[in-house]
Amino acid sequence: MRAGPSQEEIRRHNLGALLRHVHLSGPTSRAELTNRMGLNRSTIMALTADLTAAGLVREELPRETGRAGRPSLVVRPESARVYVFALDVGVDRLVAARVGLGGTILDRRETVRRRGDFSLEEIVGPLAAFVRQMHRRTRPDTVCVGVAAAFSGGVGRGDGVVRFGPNMVTVDDVPFADEMGRRLAFGLPITVGNDANLAALAEQTRGVGVGCRDLVYLHGDVGIGGGVIVNGQLLGGHLGFGGEVGHMIVNPDKGRLCGCGSHGCLEAEVGERAFLEAAGRFGSRVGRDAVRAAVDAADRGDVVAQAALSRVGDWLGLGVSNLVNLFNPEMVVFGGTLREIYLGSAAQVRSRLALDALPPCREHLRLRTSALGDDATLVGAAELAFSQVLADPLEVLARAGS
Amino acid sequence: MRAGPSQEEIRRHNLGALLRHVHLSGPTSRAELTNRMGLNRSTIMALTADLTAAGLVREELPRETGRAGRPSLVVRPESARVYVFALDVGVDRLVAARVGLGGTILDRRETVRRRGDFSLEEIVGPLAAFVRQMHRRTRPDTVCVGVAAAFSGGVGRGDGVVRFGPNMVTVDDVPFADEMGRRLAFGLPITVGNDANLAALAEQTRGVGVGCRDLVYLHGDVGIGGGVIVNGQLLGGHLGFGGEVGHMIVNPDKGRLCGCGSHGCLEAEVGERAFLEAAGRFGSRVGRDAVRAAVDAADRGDVVAQAALSRVGDWLGLGVSNLVNLFNPEMVVFGGTLREIYLGSAAQVRSRLALDALPPCREHLRLRTSALGDDATLVGAAELAFSQVLADPLEVLARAGS
Repeated sequence: MRAGPSQEEIRRHNLGALLRHVHLSGPTSRAELTNRMGLNRSTIMALTADLTAAGLVREELPRETGRAGRPSLVVRPESARVYVFALDVGVDRLVAARVGLGGTILDRRETVRRRGDFSLEEIVGPLAAFVRQMHRRTRPDTVCVGVAAAFSGGVGRGDGVVRFGPNMVTVDDVPFADEMGRRLAFGLPITVGNDANLAALAEQTRGVGVGCRDLVYLHGDVGIGGGVIVNGQLLGGHLGFGGEVGHMIVNPDKGRLCGCGSHGCLEAEVGERAFLEAAGRFGSRVGRDAVRAAVDAADRGDVVAQAALSRVGDWLGLGVSNLVNLFNPEMVVFGGTLREIYLGSAAQVRSRLALDALPPCREHLRLRTSALGDDATLVGAAELAFSQVLADPLEVLARAGS
Repeated sequence: MRAGPSQEEIRRHNLGALLRHVHLSGPTSRAELTNRMGLNRSTIMALTADLTAAGLVREELPRETGRAGRPSLVVRPESARVYVFALDVGVDRLVAARVGLGGTILDRRETVRRRGDFSLEEIVGPLAAFVRQMHRRTRPDTVCVGVAAAFSGGVGRGDGVVRFGPNMVTVDDVPFADEMGRRLAFGLPITVGNDANLAALAEQTRGVGVGCRDLVYLHGDVGIGGGVIVNGQLLGGHLGFGGEVGHMIVNPDKGRLCGCGSHGCLEAEVGERAFLEAAGRFGSRVGRDAVRAAVDAADRGDVVAQAALSRVGDWLGLGVSNLVNLFNPEMVVFGGTLREIYLGSAAQVRSRLALDALPPCREHLRLRTSALGDDATLVGAAELAFSQVLADPLEVLARAGS
């Protein structure tokens, strides 16, 4: 704290806080902002005027309120004007979206990705093409304030280098952020995060976990990813690789071989391949549709699929019990294909928790499924891209507009 | 931040920061405080004057510096005058100490505790007697600014109620803090924390982990406790029960029965009983001395003890691998009896890590043993007791002195 923040630092903080508020909560009346932010009316007016002049928000009369008296003006994010590009590098797909302030998806492109080893070009090429297509379609008065990507792999803090991933066994360090930045040449730094980490943040800011300060998010794709929110902050650890819940070993004795080289990781017991093999369905069809078809089959009475779901649910419950004892979270969220797996095996998961989690750690626990579905990772990337402008709105806008 | 902190809040913050500095670093010259705190000389002088007037620090000429010129005055904590009581409720012992500002143990009492179920009186009675004995021996011009306890059990955030513990199977909720406070009648609230959590904090503030922002501490006693520091803060989770590393299941298939009712917990595979049984030494002698004797025997060539150490080290390495993948810590610290167990089985632990931890999570990892030894939990309790006076020195001292 030293000598305390300057007036300018306080103003910048408050501008960011107000912008974050309308970004996350949508159009909000001045009166409500005054209440929620604990600032007086004249300060809210001045902050709103600054953000309006910068073209980040606009004020307008609310729709019919049904109440008498002069209505308070509503502050609304300039969603059509201020936007980011959000990228999602999944195992099976590449997605790029243009997302307006406030979280509105304005435009979107997606392509299927083949599995197996890849070259960096096979990822960066299609994504850069998508971004350029969407950029050409924007009006001249719009402004891009950030680009960020969710990557299905381990990403070091700060450098955007991908260190490991399910299809990257032969690749050591992938300089994804640098290469993407070079190709786009937008003059904006590109930030990259682990996809499940970003999905955890997305669920906490816009999904089922709003208001939760301690949350564990589990993400099912080919592997099992995760993101852990501790006291309101994403757990990154020393270098940003924390939260690798999929590589917690739950079955060391007779465990299946995992892509990481170890045996019995949660990912090896609960991931796509383990489930589809147990259900007798591993082969030509893989991916999230195949997983969901197997869960549907169990639901319709397929006994092999039912047994597979029960087996996978048991390991999932064991993994969740360990996480509950370690993190004492308020909520565990099942996302990606784990949404369906959990819904089909909730009895196994809950019975494991009752056996294996310490009562004080599980008593107030809520188990929930993702509210954002398959877009959780993309939404997380968009929030990462918006983080700069929300931290220092006027400065970032001035740089982006120049 | 709202309208920004007031001058009074900034002053209070800076008083606490200066006091914390000399509390942790010992006597420090004004010149060094000016450097380290980023404040100007006149502010440091004013803060020091306030703390001196309150009797929390004193200024004196340094010992011979060997340099020419007028030496800078040294600010020294009033260790003999301002103190706390720190309590440690272990499975085998009860410890109470009077600890001076700066961390000096001024007085200390300890008793062996029998194992098995206990009444609250059997804990509170001896500890209250110790505190009263030590209190009677203090000079009239001394002042107690806090009382805190490290408890070998799960403690909820805020209320000081012990929810579970290795010898507390039949007890539901133990209102330890309330009862201790009633017995001492010092007019000070008694704060309580899990012993391994507090030991983790102690190692981070005064031990081997100084400067580490991401640290996992593992504590061996009858069971296995732990404390996790995430981004500089102790991980508590939603209700304060987080960090229960001993109840992470590592051996679900053929695991030993754990005190928690589950099978194959890290505690069940690595704890005192597992090790002593494997070493053929479980029986009349238990406790830390028995564990250390078995490690010594292995060192002297006892093949049964060697095999036991190897087996336990393998499970320990698996548990550490999981924690490394989840938390990506900068350092893992082995404390309590795990200090000796780790030293005797480092090869197993390291080979497990090489197999089971993701390379980016383990590459920069340091494995260390506790610097504070068996006193880590007691030192942690003292730091907890000091936390109030370090947050608001003048206010707490005024209350304590009244």
